[in-house]
Amino acid sequence: MGVVIPLEEGKNKQASVKPLVDLTKADMERVNQLILSRAGSDVQMIPEVANHLISSGGKRLRPMLTLASAAMFGYEGDAHVKLATSVEFMHTATLLHDDVVDESDLRRGKSTARMIWGNQASVLVGDFLLGQAFRMMVDVGSLEALDVLSTAASVIAEGEVLQLSVAKNMETTEDDYLQVIRAKTAALFAAAAEVGPIVARTDKAGRNALKSYGMNLGLAFQLVDDALDYGGKAADLGKNVGDDFREGKITLPVILAYRRGTPDERAFWRDAIEGGNSSEENLEKALGLITRYGSLADTIARANHYGTIARDALAPLPQSAWKTALMEVIDFSIQRVN
Amino acid sequence: MGVVIPLEEGKNKQASVKPLVDLTKADMERVNQLILSRAGSDVQMIPEVANHLISSGGKRLRPMLTLASAAMFGYEGDAHVKLATSVEFMHTATLLHDDVVDESDLRRGKSTARMIWGNQASVLVGDFLLGQAFRMMVDVGSLEALDVLSTAASVIAEGEVLQLSVAKNMETTEDDYLQVIRAKTAALFAAAAEVGPIVARTDKAGRNALKSYGMNLGLAFQLVDDALDYGGKAADLGKNVGDDFREGKITLPVILAYRRGTPDERAFWRDAIEGGNSSEENLEKALGLITRYGSLADTIARANHYGTIARDALAPLPQSAWKTALMEVIDFSIQRVN
Repeated sequence: MGVVIPLEEGKNKQASVKPLVDLTKADMERVNQLILSRAGSDVQMIPEVANHLISSGGKRLRPMLTLASAAMFGYEGDAHVKLATSVEFMHTATLLHDDVVDESDLRRGKSTARMIWGNQASVLVGDFLLGQAFRMMVDVGSLEALDVLSTAASVIAEGEVLQLSVAKNMETTEDDYLQVIRAKTAALFAAAAEVGPIVARTDKAGRNALKSYGMNLGLAFQLVDDALDYGGKAADLGKNVGDDFREGKITLPVILAYRRGTPDERAFWRDAIEGGNSSEENLEKALGLITRYGSLADTIARANHYGTIARDALAPLPQSAWKTALMEVIDFSIQRVN
Repeated sequence: MGVVIPLEEGKNKQASVKPLVDLTKADMERVNQLILSRAGSDVQMIPEVANHLISSGGKRLRPMLTLASAAMFGYEGDAHVKLATSVEFMHTATLLHDDVVDESDLRRGKSTARMIWGNQASVLVGDFLLGQAFRMMVDVGSLEALDVLSTAASVIAEGEVLQLSVAKNMETTEDDYLQVIRAKTAALFAAAAEVGPIVARTDKAGRNALKSYGMNLGLAFQLVDDALDYGGKAADLGKNVGDDFREGKITLPVILAYRRGTPDERAFWRDAIEGGNSSEENLEKALGLITRYGSLADTIARANHYGTIARDALAPLPQSAWKTALMEVIDFSIQRVN
């Protein structure tokens, strides 16, 4: 089950995250070491829960952004490794809390921590990882980086609360939705990319370029994620088609299909999403409407829009292997839908 | 229902928190202003949830410690106001998450936030307040204060996880228990008192004195809290006698009664706490055993032990109204049991 998402014309080259992975390989090994040591605790449950999520096969895109955005400005030291680890801990803490808030059973095809150790441990280990993230930032000693990352922590939580308050509300506009994904996803991508130039002590232009790149890459990334939930390669990514539908989550594919539908179809959406009637039969019908109104293709078109902004943000920077790799990550983030 | 706790001999003077309240009055008004503005958000649910807890009539002991511990060294500025607000936000975030973890219905006699807005909002608004706390610390710009408070954030969460992993386990020793309350309660008291001398740029001796005062005051405070759960003025404080018993929480009164009991009595405790048989009849029996073995009186004796250490920690500092007020808070924290 799932909708086939049309490729944008003329973009046949398959982009990859591999150049970025290769360039950051040595530093990512240091990040992985630091993750293991800073998620350690005499309280046995902490490393158990933390390692479950940390070893569950995420791409670690966010810490790679921090490493790359420092290295591309010639930074050589270990501040970027600590900040990259902080970013990954912030992300992991968010996932732990998200799974509790969403009552999720699966993440990337594996049982969530809350299903194994309970909601209580998930909340508290998330808090611990957030505390450890801040300790590493303090260790680095850059008040500018601390400012960027602590602001991101607030904004992410604010975005999650906003998402909660628009949940199951079909009157949510595309602007409301954008405000949610900007806060809950793009803000951390932006912060991850901005702290690189900060520790590399580059100029304001470089810092702003990376921040804008991260923000727009994050928007594209989340738009594609939300499209994947209704089709594409979802199964390969350990996601189940229709998870968002079953949770009554309002994402752009649904917003577009609802707004473009007939009064009867809008009544269907309200019943399914607001009324919680998310049977397999209703999911089939939802997928049909999403296809009929081109909602996935247009969600990907929005992702391409932000991808273009991310590309232009980096454009003025001098040519380098780092820049090329970061550019390719934009295409990769969007093409993973196919 | 509840056990009458014997007063320690020769301590008839009724100590009060009032001198500290009076001395910090002007600064606490600035703290309250800052609380309101920093708990604000366009996302309506955030100030609603935050204000519910913030306005629910806590004593605000922790921020007063920060204000006093800066002012007693002659500090005049606004860093201590920001740090005091950060400390209160960290505390509020912990309470929001605690209520979710403990599945609590009441706090200080009022419905908990999770009963009104749900577990989801409680987790996420807690995260938001923690983020805002860090932003205010970054604003102050003291890496030393950031180090102390971010370490406290990790330690608190670690203590909560430890508490979870010893929950409903009657083999918990007094040392295990002490490790839990040192982490989950005393660490924040210690940090709250230590950041005062840090922003006042006093010498290491002053900083250590306040840190030790806070740590030991926190231990005494939590010991008394745990005694109150089985007697004393619990009802006046909006607590229900026996809440800890019903949750299967292992606190010192229970640890002592269990260890001093007969094999039959130990079987009773295991059934009640580990087996979850916390009927009113069993609570009556538990209160009887706690009285028979002097467990509450000895819990208070332990509190006095730490109170004495807190007093001696402050002793070498020059005489001042601040010092007198902080000394009196020790007695107040212990005497509130009567």
